[in-house]
Amino acid sequence: MEPIFSNLTIVLCKTKYSENIGSAARAMCNMGISNLALVAPANIDLEKVKKTATHESVNVVNTIRIYETLKEAIGDSHYVVGTTARLGRQRREPLSPSDAAQAIIPLLHNNRVAILFGPEDRGLENKDLDYCDILVNIPTMGFTSINLSHAVMLLCYEIAGAVNPSSEKPVQRLADKNELERLFDHLEEVLITTGYTNPENPGFYLSKFRRFLYRLQLKPGEVHIVNGLLQKLLSIVPKK
Amino acid sequence: MEPIFSNLTIVLCKTKYSENIGSAARAMCNMGISNLALVAPANIDLEKVKKTATHESVNVVNTIRIYETLKEAIGDSHYVVGTTARLGRQRREPLSPSDAAQAIIPLLHNNRVAILFGPEDRGLENKDLDYCDILVNIPTMGFTSINLSHAVMLLCYEIAGAVNPSSEKPVQRLADKNELERLFDHLEEVLITTGYTNPENPGFYLSKFRRFLYRLQLKPGEVHIVNGLLQKLLSIVPKK
Repeated sequence: MEPIFSNLTIVLCKTKYSENIGSAARAMCNMGISNLALVAPANIDLEKVKKTATHESVNVVNTIRIYETLKEAIGDSHYVVGTTARLGRQRREPLSPSDAAQAIIPLLHNNRVAILFGPEDRGLENKDLDYCDILVNIPTMGFTSINLSHAVMLLCYEIAGAVNPSSEKPVQRLADKNELERLFDHLEEVLITTGYTNPENPGFYLSKFRRFLYRLQLKPGEVHIVNGLLQKLLSIVPKK
Repeated sequence: MEPIFSNLTIVLCKTKYSENIGSAARAMCNMGISNLALVAPANIDLEKVKKTATHESVNVVNTIRIYETLKEAIGDSHYVVGTTARLGRQRREPLSPSDAAQAIIPLLHNNRVAILFGPEDRGLENKDLDYCDILVNIPTMGFTSINLSHAVMLLCYEIAGAVNPSSEKPVQRLADKNELERLFDHLEEVLITTGYTNPENPGFYLSKFRRFLYRLQLKPGEVHIVNGLLQKLLSIVPKK
């Protein structure tokens, strides 16, 4: 296994069919990727998972981690990639799998990266996409939907293919999602305290700020600076 | 569908599980490829095929052609590609999926091309490989075996991607420097008014903020939002 793949986790959210989990585990194993996390899987049947995973990927299956919420699953990740089929509906332009792989590889040297896949029927929700640094879309003919394990295979294949020993210089450690969420909590407080947000829809501007702060790939020291300013502001701005 | 794909046929030989046929049909459909031929499938159950194919690929399933022998299936092909996992055992060096796709695309304009996939457990036999102009191998970790429909997906994905290389997307218009400088002026005022900066060196934090705001490649609308917040803050924070 590529040593940097220990920093890569495939996260399947609210998967409905255990066969797809097993099939995804097998695909990961084919590509040398072994960290699999599940968020609130529906009616998981480990026997079905193991059967479709085949004996070759028993290690992937045996080390599956299961979380109740996405927030917990990605808490210690530094960079989150969301997969989406819903072209034209999201506010950000998704990358192709190969461009996403190019973005992910240099990060993996010093950062934990999670790639999220939504449930079979609906994909990731908008609130899941809010956690994502980048989105990736697998181009398809028309609007046909890709089987979940096929999508996992294509992403893992592109990532495995993009690993190149003489690749670009590694990216420094980024702020992890817990650090960023504290920043967003402070920012939300500022937006509310100053009356900048419409109280009817407090999340509207916050999600815009989230989106471009995510683009920044902030380092821990930078989060510290922004947090310092936000706390300073909170100590000064009179409460509404 | 790409018109040249009418010259491309996926040929599954002696497939054991009907689910894999359906899943392969779905993958083909995702990538805009619709000719599917089966050679001597074992115990084919069309209901299982249709279920895993999903309704989206009903056309692929309805036009499946079934042959008793590989020789019949490829009789009218001009170029045959064999997929193989058995590295080191064949007499020819297999190509990577992307190199194979590059070889196949120019042929498709004037030639019928068949891509052969062997049964799940054993792959293509040597006598099948004798029909092949080129061999292709999907690189995997160790000697793990890829699910048949995953292998079909990867080949179809590479071929579809080689037809329409996802060229660089145009970058949206960014905020111009005047817009950004107005933002920095407001930010500096906030940093000073709140007492966040050391008055001895007012530029220190501003230059840090400048640096990461530059990384953002902000759009005009985003500058507008940040400016709105800064002005709101300036109207609230008491002057020092």
